[in-house]
Amino acid sequence: MPEDAVVLVGQKPTMNYVLATTMPLNEGRTVILKARGRAISKAVDIAEITRRRFFLEASIQSIEIGTWQGESSMDGRPRNVSTIEITVAPTKAPAEKTAKKPTKKPSEKATE
Amino acid sequence: MPEDAVVLVGQKPTMNYVLATTMPLNEGRTVILKARGRAISKAVDIAEITRRRFFLEASIQSIEIGTWQGESSMDGRPRNVSTIEITVAPTKAPAEKTAKKPTKKPSEKATE
Repeated sequence: MPEDAVVLVGQKPTMNYVLATTMPLNEGRTVILKARGRAISKAVDIAEITRRRFFLEASIQSIEIGTWQGESSMDGRPRNVSTIEITVAPTKAPAEKTAKKPTKKPSEKATE
Repeated sequence: MPEDAVVLVGQKPTMNYVLATTMPLNEGRTVILKARGRAISKAVDIAEITRRRFFLEASIQSIEIGTWQGESSMDGRPRNVSTIEITVAPTKAPAEKTAKKPTKKPSEKATE
């Protein structure tokens, strides 16, 4: 069982994260998109673009939201920041995996 | 069964929506928070603030994401906008509901 890939969504362009999500899916791995605060909207964009344009066999396995209690801001009070975790899983075995079967049985002989 | 309340999350301050979410929960109704684009982060904030500060008996029942194909923008191509729907349900029956049971059975008689 391959390990899940974690993609932390931040300030980079959306397509960077779409690529970072598509690659592990191509290897048959599940991807967990993690984002906080304003990046939450971007994480949803990434999941949607990935499964609608780049990896049609992917499905949203789960979505969880939470609150992250951050460092105290300037006024000394702790900051609460919302978080999201979107788990995207490949629903079909990738090409590499199915290709593991030998294309020709070793016992087969050319009869001509 | 009371009807679900729908809260459309837009440009107003977060606390307006927190109140709009808390009120139906107090009546024992389930609330569906709907948001698009950048308001998605705000919808998650609203769900988290509501269940952590204002209605501790609420739970996230489901979270769904999708894509809304909008009007074509200036360049004539359709716009794709991500969407989210967060369903928040009261986990405890409200006071009004449990009070529906008659406090005294009609067949009961005062024997004294």
